[in-house]
Formats: sequence, C-alpha cells, structure tokens
Amino acid sequence: MRQCSNVMTVATTGPGLVEITRQVTEWIEQSGIDEGVLTLLCRHTSASLTIQENAAPAVRGDIVRWLSCLAPEDAGYAHDDEGPDDMPAHLKAMLTGVTLSIPVNDGRMMLGTWQGIYLVEHRRRGHRREIAAHLIGE
Amino acid sequence: MRQCSNVMTVATTGPGLVEITRQVTEWIEQSGIDEGVLTLLCRHTSASLTIQENAAPAVRGDIVRWLSCLAPEDAGYAHDDEGPDDMPAHLKAMLTGVTLSIPVNDGRMMLGTWQGIYLVEHRRRGHRREIAAHLIGE
Amino acid sequence: MRQCSNVMTVATTGPGLVEITRQVTEWIEQSGIDEGVLTLLCRHTSASLTIQENAAPAVRGDIVRWLSCLAPEDAGYAHDDEGPDDMPAHLKAMLTGVTLSIPVNDGRMMLGTWQGIYLVEHRRRGHRREIAAHLIGE
Repeated sequence: MRQCSNVMTVATTGPGLVEITRQVTEWIEQSGIDEGVLTLLCRHTSASLTIQENAAPAVRGDIVRWLSCLAPEDAGYAHDDEGPDDMPAHLKAMLTGVTLSIPVNDGRMMLGTWQGIYLVEHRRRGHRREIAAHLIGE
Repeated sequence: MRQCSNVMTVATTGPGLVEITRQVTEWIEQSGIDEGVLTLLCRHTSASLTIQENAAPAVRGDIVRWLSCLAPEDAGYAHDDEGPDDMPAHLKAMLTGVTLSIPVNDGRMMLGTWQGIYLVEHRRRGHRREIAAHLIGE
Repeated sequence: MRQCSNVMTVATTGPGLVEITRQVTEWIEQSGIDEGVLTLLCRHTSASLTIQENAAPAVRGDIVRWLSCLAPEDAGYAHDDEGPDDMPAHLKAMLTGVTLSIPVNDGRMMLGTWQGIYLVEHRRRGHRREIAAHLIGE
C-alpha cells in the first residue's frame, strides 16, 4: 500500500463551473496506483467542488443561476466588507461542499458515464484556485 | 493494511429515500476489515447519497417536498430537453452530494444511533442506481 | 502505513458554528502520522460539519440566518413531534453535510489559509455532539 499527494491549480474567470476531470485523471495515471481512494479538497471558502453532468453545457449555467437565487447578493448580510459577492460565495461553497472522496479502480475514478468533476467559482472575478489531492492504494 | 472495492445496485421507484445501511453493513462484514474508512460514490447526476434520520419515516417525505420547493420544476431552466424533472434532479443531487466517507471501527460504521445511509432518487420514475464502494483498513 | 481512530466531543449552546480546527489539529499531531487522509463524521442528524471562513465572525451569523431562511420552522412539516426546530435541523444537516475528507501533509491538514473546520448546531438548545475521526497514512 502506498500514497501520493499533490496540489493542483485551476484558473477561473468569474462565476461558473470549470471541469478538472482530465487534470485529476492524468495525475492518477502518473501515480501508478491502480486501486484506492482519491480525496480532493478545494482550499478556499468562496469556491467549491462538485460532481455534475458532463454532457449538456446548459446545466452549468442553470446551476450558477440557481445558486444565485438561493444566496442572492444584497440580502442584508452582516458580513459585507469584502464586497457584495463575498458572503453569497461562502454560502454557495457551503451548499456545494469543498471535499470529495472518489473510489479508484483499474487506475480510473469510478465516476458514472455522465459525471465530471468541477471546481465552482463563486466570486465575480477570476481567481487562481488550489486543490489539494491525496491518493492511497496500491 | 488492505482494501476492497464493490459496486452495489439499488432499485428506486421514483422520488424518495431508499435506505442502504444494511446492504453496506453486510459488505463491510464480509470484507473482514475491522478498522478503516469506507468511501461511497453514487455514480449518477440525478440521484445522490445522504446520511439521515432512520427512525421517523415522515422525515423522508418532508425531505422530498423541501427539495422540490428549493429546486422546482418549470423554473425556466435552459437545460430542459430531458424532461422537466431532469434539471431539478441535478440541482438536488448537488445540494445533497454524491460522496460519503465513513470511519469504520470494530467492523461497523461509526454512524450515530439515529443515522442511516440513504440513496436519494430525484427523477420521477424509478431507476437502477449504482454505488461504488471502497474500504481500506485492516 | 498505519491508522488511528478517535471520537471527539463538542459542546454546543444552540444554533451556531463551533470551531474544532485546533482540536482536530492536536489529535493529528499526537498520531505522529505525517502524510495521509483524515475522515470526520458528525454522528448526529441535527448537527453537521462544514469548512468555512475562519477570520470574520460575522460570517457565522449570516450562515445561521441563511439556513433558517432556507429551512424555516413552522413550514407545515409532517414530522413535527420532536419540536418545531427538529425537521429544519435535519434539512440543514443534509444541506451542509456530516462527513469531511481532508488530505494531511507535513503533519498538518491541507486547509487553505482562511479555512476552519466547524461543527454546526441546528437545534435551539445546546447539545454534546460526537465526531468520529479516522486518520490513515504514515
């Protein structure tokens, strides 16, 4: 049994889902670990991780709009000194979550056919986001 | 230290929570692993996994109704070509999540007394759902 | 490769976020495990775990208020025999989640600078909450 760790970076350009499935897949392949479990952690409180539909791009737009309905700007938040999009970003990150655990088999993540891994940017402007990754197995 | 992997199937009959605690418990017992960590992944984007109250059945109905209030059908989604229940199903799956990580001790999941593991079906009609499972420990 | 397990207890005093980052950090340090993956499970259905902003205390109040808007009391729940705050607590716990997986490196969790780990109490009165912890690595 062995393990490996990594920090991946993802560039975002404002609110939206950025697919990172290929980046993660390639890192697993390089590790040489065939069976195990992968852990991902988004190291931010205004971006998050989700597993979502990878076929229809319209899904991603609907997700961004829906999150903005649930956690709108200018809703009278007590925490507003980092801009009107900051507190909604924290709420959206909490709702979607910042950690994922994914079984790996035959050197590949056990995702379903229509599942992709996405970093979700919740701030208005783009950021350079970091994802900590850990893989254990053999 | 060793590990084992599995894919479990769960039949659903439309919106609702299907308890899978026993199915998971039996697989852990068969593995012979006494202490470790269990990872579960629902391999779909319109069904999800949650840990919820296992005593009062009324809780499950309330959950289904609440999710439908948060992500209603016919809300003007851009992605509507797979039926009016498809985009709401993606949103509900994102909110509840598709991965779970559970410590195992003395051959049993460390769930609290009132916790059960549920697959949540978000589509109108029933499906055959797959859950990838991984257990590592000794 | 080795592993260790623990159950931590956290006292709450009603709705709110209680930071447990230090408690978890100290346990990891005591374990002597330098690289690995940490799993946390909140063993309750009316409290949950989240990774959130650790700098501005106002964020925590906004979170509690936002959750109460999404899952209000007296919304006509079928399950109301354990008090008006019980069913909303289950919904809030489902939304925020009860499990976390966090990569560990150099003996420390790979959290971002502004991330802390919080137990979120969703019931009106305080409770003694249990968190199962598992760490595997070397």
